[in-house]
Amino acid sequence: MKILIVNGPNLNWLGKREPDVYGDQTLADLEEYLSRQVVGRDLELCFFQANGEGDIIDFIQKESDAGGLVINPGAFTHYSYAIRDCVSSMEFPSIEVHISNVHARETFRRESVIAPVCKGQISGLGFTGYRLAVEALTEDGIQ
Amino acid sequence: MKILIVNGPNLNWLGKREPDVYGDQTLADLEEYLSRQVVGRDLELCFFQANGEGDIIDFIQKESDAGGLVINPGAFTHYSYAIRDCVSSMEFPSIEVHISNVHARETFRRESVIAPVCKGQISGLGFTGYRLAVEALTEDGIQ
Amino acid sequence: MKILIVNGPNLNWLGKREPDVYGDQTLADLEEYLSRQVVGRDLELCFFQANGEGDIIDFIQKESDAGGLVINPGAFTHYSYAIRDCVSSMEFPSIEVHISNVHARETFRRESVIAPVCKGQISGLGFTGYRLAVEALTEDGIQ
Amino acid sequence: MKILIVNGPNLNWLGKREPDVYGDQTLADLEEYLSRQVVGRDLELCFFQANGEGDIIDFIQKESDAGGLVINPGAFTHYSYAIRDCVSSMEFPSIEVHISNVHARETFRRESVIAPVCKGQISGLGFTGYRLAVEALTEDGIQ
Amino acid sequence: MKILIVNGPNLNWLGKREPDVYGDQTLADLEEYLSRQVVGRDLELCFFQANGEGDIIDFIQKESDAGGLVINPGAFTHYSYAIRDCVSSMEFPSIEVHISNVHARETFRRESVIAPVCKGQISGLGFTGYRLAVEALTEDGIQ
Amino acid sequence: MKILIVNGPNLNWLGKREPDVYGDQTLADLEEYLSRQVVGRDLELCFFQANGEGDIIDFIQKESDAGGLVINPGAFTHYSYAIRDCVSSMEFPSIEVHISNVHARETFRRESVIAPVCKGQISGLGFTGYRLAVEALTEDGIQ
Amino acid sequence: MKILIVNGPNLNWLGKREPDVYGDQTLADLEEYLSRQVVGRDLELCFFQANGEGDIIDFIQKESDAGGLVINPGAFTHYSYAIRDCVSSMEFPSIEVHISNVHARETFRRESVIAPVCKGQISGLGFTGYRLAVEALTEDGIQ
Amino acid sequence: MKILIVNGPNLNWLGKREPDVYGDQTLADLEEYLSRQVVGRDLELCFFQANGEGDIIDFIQKESDAGGLVINPGAFTHYSYAIRDCVSSMEFPSIEVHISNVHARETFRRESVIAPVCKGQISGLGFTGYRLAVEALTEDGIQ
Amino acid sequence: MKILIVNGPNLNWLGKREPDVYGDQTLADLEEYLSRQVVGRDLELCFFQANGEGDIIDFIQKESDAGGLVINPGAFTHYSYAIRDCVSSMEFPSIEVHISNVHARETFRRESVIAPVCKGQISGLGFTGYRLAVEALTEDGIQ
Amino acid sequence: MKILIVNGPNLNWLGKREPDVYGDQTLADLEEYLSRQVVGRDLELCFFQANGEGDIIDFIQKESDAGGLVINPGAFTHYSYAIRDCVSSMEFPSIEVHISNVHARETFRRESVIAPVCKGQISGLGFTGYRLAVEALTEDGIQ
Amino acid sequence: MKILIVNGPNLNWLGKREPDVYGDQTLADLEEYLSRQVVGRDLELCFFQANGEGDIIDFIQKESDAGGLVINPGAFTHYSYAIRDCVSSMEFPSIEVHISNVHARETFRRESVIAPVCKGQISGLGFTGYRLAVEALTEDGIQ
Amino acid sequence: MKILIVNGPNLNWLGKREPDVYGDQTLADLEEYLSRQVVGRDLELCFFQANGEGDIIDFIQKESDAGGLVINPGAFTHYSYAIRDCVSSMEFPSIEVHISNVHARETFRRESVIAPVCKGQISGLGFTGYRLAVEALTEDGIQ
Repeated sequence: MKILIVNGPNLNWLGKREPDVYGDQTLADLEEYLSRQVVGRDLELCFFQANGEGDIIDFIQKESDAGGLVINPGAFTHYSYAIRDCVSSMEFPSIEVHISNVHARETFRRESVIAPVCKGQISGLGFTGYRLAVEALTEDGIQ
Repeated sequence: MKILIVNGPNLNWLGKREPDVYGDQTLADLEEYLSRQVVGRDLELCFFQANGEGDIIDFIQKESDAGGLVINPGAFTHYSYAIRDCVSSMEFPSIEVHISNVHARETFRRESVIAPVCKGQISGLGFTGYRLAVEALTEDGIQ
Repeated sequence: MKILIVNGPNLNWLGKREPDVYGDQTLADLEEYLSRQVVGRDLELCFFQANGEGDIIDFIQKESDAGGLVINPGAFTHYSYAIRDCVSSMEFPSIEVHISNVHARETFRRESVIAPVCKGQISGLGFTGYRLAVEALTEDGIQ
Repeated sequence: MKILIVNGPNLNWLGKREPDVYGDQTLADLEEYLSRQVVGRDLELCFFQANGEGDIIDFIQKESDAGGLVINPGAFTHYSYAIRDCVSSMEFPSIEVHISNVHARETFRRESVIAPVCKGQISGLGFTGYRLAVEALTEDGIQ
Repeated sequence: MKILIVNGPNLNWLGKREPDVYGDQTLADLEEYLSRQVVGRDLELCFFQANGEGDIIDFIQKESDAGGLVINPGAFTHYSYAIRDCVSSMEFPSIEVHISNVHARETFRRESVIAPVCKGQISGLGFTGYRLAVEALTEDGIQ
Repeated sequence: MKILIVNGPNLNWLGKREPDVYGDQTLADLEEYLSRQVVGRDLELCFFQANGEGDIIDFIQKESDAGGLVINPGAFTHYSYAIRDCVSSMEFPSIEVHISNVHARETFRRESVIAPVCKGQISGLGFTGYRLAVEALTEDGIQ
Repeated sequence: MKILIVNGPNLNWLGKREPDVYGDQTLADLEEYLSRQVVGRDLELCFFQANGEGDIIDFIQKESDAGGLVINPGAFTHYSYAIRDCVSSMEFPSIEVHISNVHARETFRRESVIAPVCKGQISGLGFTGYRLAVEALTEDGIQ
Repeated sequence: MKILIVNGPNLNWLGKREPDVYGDQTLADLEEYLSRQVVGRDLELCFFQANGEGDIIDFIQKESDAGGLVINPGAFTHYSYAIRDCVSSMEFPSIEVHISNVHARETFRRESVIAPVCKGQISGLGFTGYRLAVEALTEDGIQ
Repeated sequence: MKILIVNGPNLNWLGKREPDVYGDQTLADLEEYLSRQVVGRDLELCFFQANGEGDIIDFIQKESDAGGLVINPGAFTHYSYAIRDCVSSMEFPSIEVHISNVHARETFRRESVIAPVCKGQISGLGFTGYRLAVEALTEDGIQ
Repeated sequence: MKILIVNGPNLNWLGKREPDVYGDQTLADLEEYLSRQVVGRDLELCFFQANGEGDIIDFIQKESDAGGLVINPGAFTHYSYAIRDCVSSMEFPSIEVHISNVHARETFRRESVIAPVCKGQISGLGFTGYRLAVEALTEDGIQ
Repeated sequence: MKILIVNGPNLNWLGKREPDVYGDQTLADLEEYLSRQVVGRDLELCFFQANGEGDIIDFIQKESDAGGLVINPGAFTHYSYAIRDCVSSMEFPSIEVHISNVHARETFRRESVIAPVCKGQISGLGFTGYRLAVEALTEDGIQ
Repeated sequence: MKILIVNGPNLNWLGKREPDVYGDQTLADLEEYLSRQVVGRDLELCFFQANGEGDIIDFIQKESDAGGLVINPGAFTHYSYAIRDCVSSMEFPSIEVHISNVHARETFRRESVIAPVCKGQISGLGFTGYRLAVEALTEDGIQ
């Protein structure tokens, strides 16, 4: 089963940007951490990061045969109806992830235009949030 | 380490209420499921459900020596500033959980007045969401 | 057939509170009036009043085998999504009743968060409103 | 005692329009049903339907010696301040009736500009609602 | 010079409706009062009252060769964009008049959708307001 | 196949009203233009214009056996829920047409309460818009 | 009888400021025009202009024995609750006047915080508006 | 004279919750402080604290023969229309008190739904605020 | 210790303005009342009233060595960000006072732009409110 | 004459995405359909689709010598002020097209930030809408 | 060429007020700094500061023969439509300056009612902002 | 010291787009003008323009060792939280520049989501604004 791990704008800047909010670990650290979690499981993690809205849509469309999507849309969370439409048109389930607790920051960060077309959303749990999202997409959940 | 698992109003009605939204498993099923997950770990799960705002606050205050709180405030999510103040005054971290994806339902369900004082929020992942919240509270997270 | 007659906060204060708005008859008068109306009919009226949101939910859940609910949620009308969820999860139909015409008073009294999950709403008709609600729940309506 | 039964725009289309919302009975059925209810009582029901705002006002002014008004203003409910002013200037009491539960439909249907100048409002109870309104206008209410 | 004096819905009810707001004089009194003012002047006053929006537009279009319009749109003031479009398409100037001070009443009475396409507006000055409007339309104003 | 061509308030004033916005051709010109377009086709165009909301509803109800409706509701576009309900209750499809580009004018002209119950909307294309609407209603569309 | 004629900020700039909106006549012209109108009548006009909110209040309080107030508050119209409170506390009636039609200009010019405590308001009638206001304050109105 | 001193949700947590906002003194300290102030005066202070909305209403109704109420509704300040209705239906005067300056905190803390039915409100003065409220209720005020 | 007692616009009109809201005692009565309260204490009360925003700021700046400020900004409460900035830039604490209960009057009176930079606010307690404010500024508070 | 046919994000997914809303025909079908319509006419259709906002602007700028633009901006309709500015700066006329009736879907789909700078807008008419837009751009319209 | 440098309320308090926001240099320092910049140029800087709205308008009107205006309206920025009207009626160009970045502070500081009638606005650049504004007013810009 | 000069979407169209708003000089003219200003100074100006949000972010991240950023985000000003996050994560200061006075245009152009994370903003001063921004970034400000 292939899981897409998509990170939006400025997440390639992790570890450099507002370390008190996002920690000092980098995107590479995140990818390594996630890869380590799935060692020995029949799971392929497919990483992608871009600062452009169109590039993210292009990637998801190209990988439309995946089994699930974990997406941190960064700032696109709040206005990219284009990514919303893309996620919504895929057949696989998606989970939106945020490293920080978006509910405890600026008002504009509280609204997600993408979450309504996802299966669920996890926020505030750091890198762990990504791992939990992968688990939720892959386990034989009881509900 | 003691983890509080608090469910708000009408969650004792799980399995009976809108099964297409919440599934047909009951609160007892949820508690059994979670108990099974922590077997053999040094974790005490402390379950509580009430339909009254004051009862929930009383319980949390009484258990203020716990190590963490997983709370599904039900409808109180959207207006109980009293529970917000209670959660905010505790020293242990809290995670808000919703069984269904609140972002994909009525507008009023999209705002949480409690999430801003939690560590994070998980929604849309069913019973799994509770389990992931327990994990997030107990693991030696990298971030 | 059992009909629940539930009155919310401060309705035990009927006759004492703002008599120009609510009249000078008491809750006991209301219950006696309604009981008189159903004499000789195969109807059991089950009265309940409480000032606590949780108590009202507890009562309705406990009586979930009733045939219908007449509810005057008092001030809870305007914010108790918890009672809304409770009413919505019952199998029997509910009718919301208000003694005074809520549309002719303060702005906040014009919105009901509970009415959307009821069968209907009656306001402004005094005690008569309760009786009409009972009729509507029990007659073989032509609608 | 003469009671006016006024139906606003498109209610002459009852039975044809959205039968899942309004049922398949016609305006004629409604009038016959109501007439049957008052047989043998000292009550004259005076029926009127029009699609034009001015026609409704003309009718009510012409019948200003009536004893009461049951009005279903249809879509005019939501914006006809002209009908509101007309109803407000009559000496007899008025009750606003809606066949469907306006609180459970589109947002714009939740606001009535006419209800604030009525004695009360009944919604969601089908044809029964009209009958109950007539009762409320004619009985020697205890409140 | 012909001046149109148009009164909207319920103004034929003057003297009967809310006398504390509108006084106890009737529409006939108003018309007589205005006629008396223009005796001996080269002015034709053309009176019209209707409760229907379309009737008012029909009248104004028919009299499009008049020299000015004094209009009290009654409740249509607040929502009749149709009358606005009609007034706006005439070549003669119009003045909106209100008997009572609309700024001191319910909020909805404060907005006029018609005034923006008039030359001016007079409110709160009773019958006098109509007379002043006629003066303003006919005098060789210095500004 | 019979197509209704309904024009709302003040459209009988075409050519006289704001010629820079609406051009200088008249309603008669429009009707002649459209008639010319359908010469030799099995199409009956049925023209109607009125300044009154109720008259428009009366007409549409009377012609409920038509095959389609092209409607320019004029100012009623923005508040006539009565016409909306009427259009919505017809079995034939409707297309809303505006001569000018409503999106480029006053704010209040941007919202249509009628468009949501139409098949589609065309604005800004002058008389051509009516013709295109007729085409869209009559062609064996590929979608 | 003494009538106060109060002009607010920038009205001393009349004739210089936006002549297309306000004309090219000056404040002196206005005062001369008004004085001419009342020649031979038992009326004393008392002129005042100031750019400061406090100065206007000081003046009105000092002249609290006047018989009426004609006030063009200029930009203070839209936010000076202090002048509102002052006008409201006087025993004589006040009329608010605007030279231009405030309803046809920027949105912020449409709201007056002072008009609700006046007897009435006249706008859009140029200098004539002041004269009409004086008339309305002094005539034995029939209203 | 009996004065009720009612504290709402989480105020039993005083001294533990956000000490930088609320200080480090406890509810017991507050009660002792107030008791000390009234020593030797003919005043009975009646203390009550609860986390439940219904419990607070029950208490106030039970003590309806008191001479005054000092209430810090905690988070209920912002949404408990039920407590508002209760306070409003008492014959004795009430004063709302807040320890911190609610105007200088989160936006939601600025609105009180209860203050409109109180005699007055004191905020930001710490424990002193309670004492001043007691004084205001008991002195033979000059105004 | 010097305490400034500043009253804003129209408070020199106390006793004359709306006596049912503000009582019939004058500003002189207030100042005498307060002076009497501090007899024999080491307190200098420094009274000031003005109708102009700038005058109030000038006064406060000139007295920047005072020990505290009791300010009733009158209507400036609701829009004078200039006074807010002034109060905020002083080193001494300020308390905002209102004679009437601003929460129970017009909506616009509920918002204070000055209170957020004060230590606290007292409203609805008449002249007593000023005295309590002086006490709060001078006592060795326990909080 | 060259006409640009520009489709925005996710429209390359036509036929796969929500077939109940958008039908099951693909972007290739659309282009073929449109090409077929213009066979034998002196018209060059220039097709372009991209998921990136910048790519669409780049394309339009590059083709600034075209004679007209038919644009379906997809989700960019609702927030791309950048495309608006681009369309606005072209000398040729543009028509905005939507396959589905945007007025009958989610609220956010009702606002177009691009339509105000277009000649017109067509929505809800499927592929036909594109063809009608081409016609409108190319015919010698009477208006 | 004469340039007016006008500073609004509390700017005479520079250096004392919130030094972390505004720095610790005074208004005198600012004026000296600016004077130094224009030494040897044919420029007369005319400084003015006042806390009163009317005083600022009086000054600008008196200096209406100046060649330009640099204005920091302080808190008046956000509500003084009176100063806006004054600035707008001058023939010389004006530039609004703010020492701090108003976009990064409280919400109310983000709106300027004066900037729309200025040539431009500079914020966040400290004293330098004033100097740059003088440059912009005096250079033969290429713009 | 390296200064980035970044221009957003459609600014490559300068001189062609709305010349009455933006003048008729081109982007090349702007760059030449700025280059000329810094001749002989130890300043490297690094120019960049793109129509794509992601491209702008890519560029800024790549040049993260610069000493300052002058950015005219064009239409992205109003919604690109992605660019905001990028600018915010850089260590060098940024100044937002607009050629026209955004405060005097359409409402949507008045809000900048990027300015809050900049040092300051300059608008309405044409090309001069860019030069002043460079000066502000490079001078040893006294602020």
